[in-house]
Amino acid sequence: MIKLIEGGVCAAKGYKANGVHCGIRKNHSKKDLAMIVSDVVSNAAAVYTTNLVKGAPITVTKQHISDGKAQAVICNSGNANTCNANGIEIAEEMSVLAAEALGISKDDIIIASTGVIGQKLDISPIKSGIGPLVEGLSYEGSHIASEAIMTTDTVPKEIAVEFTLGGKVCHMGGIAKGSGMIHPNMATMLVFITTDANISSAMLAKALSTDVQDTFNMTSVDGDTSTNDMVSIMANGLAGNDEITAEGEDFDIFMKALNTITIALCKMIAGDGEGATKLLECVVTGAEDKETAKTIAKSVICSSLLKSAMFGADANWGRVLCAIGYSGVDIDPSDISVSFRSSEGEIMVCKDGSGVDFSEEKAKQILLQNEIYILISAGSGKYSATAWGCDLTYDYVKINGDYRS
Amino acid sequence: MIKLIEGGVCAAKGYKANGVHCGIRKNHSKKDLAMIVSDVVSNAAAVYTTNLVKGAPITVTKQHISDGKAQAVICNSGNANTCNANGIEIAEEMSVLAAEALGISKDDIIIASTGVIGQKLDISPIKSGIGPLVEGLSYEGSHIASEAIMTTDTVPKEIAVEFTLGGKVCHMGGIAKGSGMIHPNMATMLVFITTDANISSAMLAKALSTDVQDTFNMTSVDGDTSTNDMVSIMANGLAGNDEITAEGEDFDIFMKALNTITIALCKMIAGDGEGATKLLECVVTGAEDKETAKTIAKSVICSSLLKSAMFGADANWGRVLCAIGYSGVDIDPSDISVSFRSSEGEIMVCKDGSGVDFSEEKAKQILLQNEIYILISAGSGKYSATAWGCDLTYDYVKINGDYRS
Repeated sequence: MIKLIEGGVCAAKGYKANGVHCGIRKNHSKKDLAMIVSDVVSNAAAVYTTNLVKGAPITVTKQHISDGKAQAVICNSGNANTCNANGIEIAEEMSVLAAEALGISKDDIIIASTGVIGQKLDISPIKSGIGPLVEGLSYEGSHIASEAIMTTDTVPKEIAVEFTLGGKVCHMGGIAKGSGMIHPNMATMLVFITTDANISSAMLAKALSTDVQDTFNMTSVDGDTSTNDMVSIMANGLAGNDEITAEGEDFDIFMKALNTITIALCKMIAGDGEGATKLLECVVTGAEDKETAKTIAKSVICSSLLKSAMFGADANWGRVLCAIGYSGVDIDPSDISVSFRSSEGEIMVCKDGSGVDFSEEKAKQILLQNEIYILISAGSGKYSATAWGCDLTYDYVKINGDYRS
Repeated sequence: MIKLIEGGVCAAKGYKANGVHCGIRKNHSKKDLAMIVSDVVSNAAAVYTTNLVKGAPITVTKQHISDGKAQAVICNSGNANTCNANGIEIAEEMSVLAAEALGISKDDIIIASTGVIGQKLDISPIKSGIGPLVEGLSYEGSHIASEAIMTTDTVPKEIAVEFTLGGKVCHMGGIAKGSGMIHPNMATMLVFITTDANISSAMLAKALSTDVQDTFNMTSVDGDTSTNDMVSIMANGLAGNDEITAEGEDFDIFMKALNTITIALCKMIAGDGEGATKLLECVVTGAEDKETAKTIAKSVICSSLLKSAMFGADANWGRVLCAIGYSGVDIDPSDISVSFRSSEGEIMVCKDGSGVDFSEEKAKQILLQNEIYILISAGSGKYSATAWGCDLTYDYVKINGDYRS
């Protein structure tokens, strides 16, 4: 049983968090520095962007986490610290500042940055902000930390669950920032997950890298894979369960808890995509293999034309067929059927590759809702996949037409 | 010497054209049926969309042109005749109507359709429109035909050139429709090219398929590869030059003439992308091989984030680096330099993978123009490539939010 609870990254035992405005951003009402700290050194794992142009914090975090251990996360918004000649130096300096303030090793710091690429990150606001940031750390600090990592996000993103391993109650929670440049391939955006479950570094890494294939890697806002994507997880073992060191029942329960956290965050990220008014969930069934199902789902969710049609609540299903056709999968178009579903009901618009008569009025009513399911039957195979995205709107263009100002 | 001339698809000897409103579209002021006819049977070639979901006209044209011959093009706008159970039947019926009205073989008809996918195409307006269409054919009819193939295009697209082969003056001209669902892979949108040069079917096919790799396949408006893309060329030989049957000087001149036509049409299509306010031309130099140069240019031109930044005249070059990084090429980011250029001058914004100080004011001035060059140096290699695209604007979303209405 996986039970939803409150508390975000502080839901698990022994995790404090905080967020402050330190001055990286000019707007004083916008927090720009966040921290999550475990009371004890934790097993840790992370997955990163596959973009060849990588933020300096990615490089530094990879080194720090190479021993499978971490104790704290420090993350700034407002500047990605990417494509800067002195980027690594600044990222290392951030780690040292955090480590000294916390009295822990700098090699146990996960560091992340998000914001504009290619503008030098000044260390001085971080230097002056680290004191108040550490001072204000609290076991109820998840929400304020989730606010401090936002860029163009309109809402903070938090989730937590409770589950049981070998009779011991465990907890897991996560916070995320998403919005733009979201088209992860391997990892994604910034997601920080904490748990008090006891699990080895190796199994933690396995759990995370398996999970992201079907969750964050199936989420797209705009087709742009960021330079700074990262999903990290810390497991401090304070729940007291027997350490998970191999596959088995406990690992399955852990994976299920993790999947509950990650899917919830994916939907929050897609639904709060830059300028988005709708969350799109594309569910493909009946495919001959898993890769085909995933490729179709992701191609549909990424089509600018379909995304625009969804913004306009226009049941232009031809664009779904078009996106399947150019996705690169080997499929007979006459096997494809398409329906749209929302809280207002479900309507079939295409059967066996050709249009069927349907009520435009009913379709409009369905598509005017803010959570739309695009249901695709790809044949009589037994594989399925889900991808998450959002509509393309005036506001996406507006936000990205002058992001740096 | 390739000289620009007037006349579009009627610039070459022996080609008539026309366009009428026959009633496929409800709006009476919008022409929806076009025809181009050669006085004599021509050698012909075409390249088509790689989308697995193909319009019925693509299937029918492939059959008709399989003998390397054609004499006429018929093309309707307002309905793509794609994903319709009776699509092939309707496309064949259109060919027969055109052939009978012209007194030629139906197997010499190139047929094309563009518009909404998945709505049955009624043959009756075409049946009643074919008479006036054929009656009005004229040696000055290129412009009216170029209007009749438009969908969301805001301007008709025509070009023609004059060149000399073996002492004989030859001509070549083309018309195109572009706008949305433009991300060709193999062929593209609808482009009809005519020439009076004498060239064998085999060499014509070779010329066309070689040329599109660096022209239409390097053009993108929105990343969506249409189901109905087609580029066709007819060569009726009326210029009287010795037939080109192999590579050599004449073939090179022919290729150069063709390339002048196709690049001009690519720029017209990209610059008139749905909602576009700017033509973007991305020029990559210094790559280690041709594929790397092409992949970088196309990835940059396709980035929604960069396209939005260009709309806002924001020199957000980090998005250029980001798009290069996720493009899949094997390149050292520290070898990359980026400049922006327009009629207002040129400015370097990134050198050796890191930002350089530049005047934001000057950059803004450069990016406020309507033809922007994004210049990327990828290292010290000797390969280069160019891709064409456009900015992403409110109007793209508006046009595609309710295209079917």
